[in-house]
Amino acid sequence: MTQTVRGTILQTPSPDTFEALPDQIVTIDDEGVIESIVDGVGLATDADTDLGPSLVLLPGLIDTHIHAPQWPQLGSNLDLPLEQWLIDYTFPLESRFEDLEFAVTVWSHMVPSLLREGTTTAVYYGSIHESATTALAEACVRYGQRAFVGRVAMDHPEGTPDWYRDQSATDAVSASQRSIEAIRALPGAGGLVEPIITPRFIPACTDAALGGLGELAEATKTRIQTHCSESDWEHGHVLDRCGRTDAHALDHFGLIADHTVLAHATHLTNDDRSLLARTGAGVAHCPLSNSYFSNAVFSTRSALDAGVRVGLGTDIAGGPEASLLAQCQHAVTSSQMLETGVDATRRTDRGVADSRIDAITAFYLATGGGADLLGINAGLLAPGRVFDAIAVDIGARSRVRRWDGDDWGQTFEKVVRGATASEIRHVWVGGRLVEPTPT
Amino acid sequence: MTQTVRGTILQTPSPDTFEALPDQIVTIDDEGVIESIVDGVGLATDADTDLGPSLVLLPGLIDTHIHAPQWPQLGSNLDLPLEQWLIDYTFPLESRFEDLEFAVTVWSHMVPSLLREGTTTAVYYGSIHESATTALAEACVRYGQRAFVGRVAMDHPEGTPDWYRDQSATDAVSASQRSIEAIRALPGAGGLVEPIITPRFIPACTDAALGGLGELAEATKTRIQTHCSESDWEHGHVLDRCGRTDAHALDHFGLIADHTVLAHATHLTNDDRSLLARTGAGVAHCPLSNSYFSNAVFSTRSALDAGVRVGLGTDIAGGPEASLLAQCQHAVTSSQMLETGVDATRRTDRGVADSRIDAITAFYLATGGGADLLGINAGLLAPGRVFDAIAVDIGARSRVRRWDGDDWGQTFEKVVRGATASEIRHVWVGGRLVEPTPT
Repeated sequence: MTQTVRGTILQTPSPDTFEALPDQIVTIDDEGVIESIVDGVGLATDADTDLGPSLVLLPGLIDTHIHAPQWPQLGSNLDLPLEQWLIDYTFPLESRFEDLEFAVTVWSHMVPSLLREGTTTAVYYGSIHESATTALAEACVRYGQRAFVGRVAMDHPEGTPDWYRDQSATDAVSASQRSIEAIRALPGAGGLVEPIITPRFIPACTDAALGGLGELAEATKTRIQTHCSESDWEHGHVLDRCGRTDAHALDHFGLIADHTVLAHATHLTNDDRSLLARTGAGVAHCPLSNSYFSNAVFSTRSALDAGVRVGLGTDIAGGPEASLLAQCQHAVTSSQMLETGVDATRRTDRGVADSRIDAITAFYLATGGGADLLGINAGLLAPGRVFDAIAVDIGARSRVRRWDGDDWGQTFEKVVRGATASEIRHVWVGGRLVEPTPT
Repeated sequence: MTQTVRGTILQTPSPDTFEALPDQIVTIDDEGVIESIVDGVGLATDADTDLGPSLVLLPGLIDTHIHAPQWPQLGSNLDLPLEQWLIDYTFPLESRFEDLEFAVTVWSHMVPSLLREGTTTAVYYGSIHESATTALAEACVRYGQRAFVGRVAMDHPEGTPDWYRDQSATDAVSASQRSIEAIRALPGAGGLVEPIITPRFIPACTDAALGGLGELAEATKTRIQTHCSESDWEHGHVLDRCGRTDAHALDHFGLIADHTVLAHATHLTNDDRSLLARTGAGVAHCPLSNSYFSNAVFSTRSALDAGVRVGLGTDIAGGPEASLLAQCQHAVTSSQMLETGVDATRRTDRGVADSRIDAITAFYLATGGGADLLGINAGLLAPGRVFDAIAVDIGARSRVRRWDGDDWGQTFEKVVRGATASEIRHVWVGGRLVEPTPT
């Protein structure tokens, strides 16, 4: 049975285009796909859901980089550089997900919490544990969140602690294969939740594991995610070990493919960008996390100009904020800071010209850019796309109130910069209204 | 009549000190001042308000820099440099506050909205209009927000448009004087709402107005606020016109005094910092706004190390976010970016060592630092201080959930980085529970 939703649409069809479509009638088929969008101005049609003037409709948010088992430390433990942070805080926490009951407790809080933040698609790293990872995929199915869920592979005896690693490259690959099969076999997963091959990053994986996972991706036609050139340390580690940049080393192992998701990529070279553009791989840009761990700002503008796909990510919990709209704010401000520089004592040569992006580009990364990176039919409200959407309150009592005289562009900017979970009144995934309560 | 509030206190007595006091009983006298705080562990005492284990008690937030009439554009109009932004967007909006009815509409939305964000003390710039400014002070009294309210003086025929300026230096000073008297005469203002002398900034004021306002401050014993060395443009403008830095020029005009609040101060010299430390003036640090308008990061660490008072500010609406906790996040991340630099192509000499601050320092700026800057008896829950406080939800369904095993330091970090208005369940100012609804 079809359903109709009526309201004003605000969205970004491209990185530099904003579109306001007042009072539209969206018809959604029983598969959750948009059949048609027609102008409702002057029409008396009763819609199944009429948002009225105090709610606006936007595409759902696509978070392309989340470490699910780091959820309990979100917002804390951010005083160490990456390489120490992993050992002191993060691997100990992730290792606790061997306990399936603990895992289910966390997923039952995290998945609905993220839906309330407007995250209709999530790209998750799990832990090394197959049961906890499958349970995460089950939670996504249960709560109705579109997701890619990856069991983490990490087997390097120097890059990982002996209490949290795959025992061999063979184990890393075979456990990853079993996890793909388990997620694909889940009732209700089809069209909503998919597996993704997830070597943690080169420092945590042996060459044998990396090569084996590349082959597994090819054989099982599964997408890939990993980290790439995140910080001076990580970038330098790969240069030393592999004699080439992270992106090229990953390519050597068969891990750079169409829709491969590379988190951070802060230290890409021009040649790296060409490789990504050519192969259809792209970047999960995590601006807030980068300010803690990356030693530099990812140049969104350079990546887009080179034809690289770019989505946005929270990097929970390296990024201490669950809201992807908050990441839009950080994407804009960090690009401003890249452009103007940070050190007032430097009177010349302070920043990098033409680096700035605005709220339109940032929101595109959070929606259409993420969809393009992943190769999914979401990220824009248009016929043929899934109806993944959020309705945001712009009424008189809202934090993102629309004042008399505001045009739709100003309203859009206010929503992108200011809406929190409280202002997001409805969330749909594939046409299904999800009204999640964290438990 | 005294009242008691029981709960766990999390706070920062100094820039580098965090204090967790589980299960305290706070006794507050009928003037709203804390009489005593005693350990309640093991005591059966019934408190008037018992916060239980799922709420924590923190000092109320002190926002040291807000442009009240810019509230309607919060979150939008951020695509221009400061000098154009003022002319194209901001002065036209501020000039609308000649209409008292419009002003009252805005104040009735803004003041309760800020209270809900946990802002128990606000330092406001009004507009040039006396009626709208007095109405703002009245709104603060009505909703119970501690505030400093300043009628803006700006008379420079080149730095301001002819449709939004004081007609002469004499007008600028006499209107400021009348505004001080009007606010001091308001019923209920005493001990809660005070006037503050507010020359906009040197580029908008003639020498005569600046000197006259310095004399007015001295004569009426009124605090002063203005902007100082905000951007390359503004810093350079003052150097050209006055032949000295902004801080020293303001001092020349009698505007640098104990508790003078200087917004931004991003481009201070060492000598400027010495001047501020010596005189007891200080800085309203506005990290989010700075990323848009200041061309550099304010070095909190340099200021604190030099003995300069530092509070935190939103700079609504140059800073597009009403929450002072969100500013804490930005204060931390911008300091990280100052420390590590932003430009990945620069392999050496990228950042400024020892610039980083953490959530403890940031929260201190938002509470005790602001109180010290203003010279008010708030910012810390301790006997003899006013009971300005917020209660934040850390329960199982909260965005800032306390997980089993978290210590209080981790809980504190989560609250500072993640609590939004929805998690702030109660707000007290001077012992009065304010439960504001924006209208």
